[in-house]
Amino acid sequence: MVLLSGGMDSATCLALAARRDGHRCHALSFDYGQRHRAELDAAARIARLLGALEHRTLRIDLGALGGSALTDRAIAVPEQPGSGIPVTYVPARNTVFLSFALAWAEVLDADFIYSGVNAVDYSGYPDCRPEYIAAFQRMADLATRRGVDGRPVLLRTPLMALGKADIIRLGAGLGVDFAVTVSCYQADASGAACGACDACRLRHAGFVAAGLADVTRYQAARHPG
Amino acid sequence: MVLLSGGMDSATCLALAARRDGHRCHALSFDYGQRHRAELDAAARIARLLGALEHRTLRIDLGALGGSALTDRAIAVPEQPGSGIPVTYVPARNTVFLSFALAWAEVLDADFIYSGVNAVDYSGYPDCRPEYIAAFQRMADLATRRGVDGRPVLLRTPLMALGKADIIRLGAGLGVDFAVTVSCYQADASGAACGACDACRLRHAGFVAAGLADVTRYQAARHPG
Repeated sequence: MVLLSGGMDSATCLALAARRDGHRCHALSFDYGQRHRAELDAAARIARLLGALEHRTLRIDLGALGGSALTDRAIAVPEQPGSGIPVTYVPARNTVFLSFALAWAEVLDADFIYSGVNAVDYSGYPDCRPEYIAAFQRMADLATRRGVDGRPVLLRTPLMALGKADIIRLGAGLGVDFAVTVSCYQADASGAACGACDACRLRHAGFVAAGLADVTRYQAARHPG
Repeated sequence: MVLLSGGMDSATCLALAARRDGHRCHALSFDYGQRHRAELDAAARIARLLGALEHRTLRIDLGALGGSALTDRAIAVPEQPGSGIPVTYVPARNTVFLSFALAWAEVLDADFIYSGVNAVDYSGYPDCRPEYIAAFQRMADLATRRGVDGRPVLLRTPLMALGKADIIRLGAGLGVDFAVTVSCYQADASGAACGACDACRLRHAGFVAAGLADVTRYQAARHPG
């Protein structure tokens, strides 16, 4: 079970699960009212390119609860990084995503859940830290039939301690086509990036630091380089 | 924030939060492909009768993942209790529900999440045990903005240690109209109960043990008494 957002981290995570660790992978994405729906098209293409057995997209109603610039059109996406937890934080998003992953993993009788969460570039999101993942694992062990049976579903977060440049090098080495991935918070319908939001800046700096060409498709005149 | 299923436990829980503890309550229900949709109509009526400020129903796609008699029409609901974890177990259901509750609690800046989970009559569901709730609390403390700020959202499960008869006495004392609540796994569209499933048996035995009249509406000729 691999959580696949359509961004570069989860694409690299799927490549690790499938190509390095040799698992037969089922990929799960969420349509949660995010503004950047081009991510979902990207996720479907990535799942196909990396040979996932199955890719499902669940519709969930996080946007109906409001509270984030990523799902609520009344809150602007900032173009300058601020301090503290950013307005792009979606309340309890990773908890909701991992909960559905746990449900599907139980139905599939999957041994592992892979998530591309990352503490280095987490930009202040509390639910991307290793201590959070460890606490989710303990909760999951108590929540599930497999946990009760002594065969808990194990969370794998292989990118947790890696910087963006490391992730890009790792993914490139496993044959991930990053031109297909979408990181931008305000990508256009084709997936072309704005070049200005936090996610675009981090991504571009990652390519530069990795010493690789930035293959991102940018909207006209928005290339950050 | 009160999780409201439309059953008697969550109705009693809302009454405790609103009438005993004096909170201004927001109630949350889930349309998750359950067979017993009469529950959702019941939840809306209960929220109104107990004075909730707001009642929201989120559509979530748990049924699309399969794996339970409560959401998958290919699996029969048993009329005799079995041993171990029953087929009516929905994988990771409480984890998914509590995750959405946590998300909404953060958006509302709510201080408490009330859940009517109960370990006494839990019929083998792993995610109804106190050790599970404690682990969810620790995870939530790390997952959220409020947790980071040192004002964590607190889970309240006031029915955890109570038997069905205690819950019925408590709810009746707080003015809960149990005729409105639906417990049956295969209620008809009007909410009338089958009188035969595990949930109906537990509920009827609860009224008997509480020394109160069973006010449940049963389908014709299905009264268990």
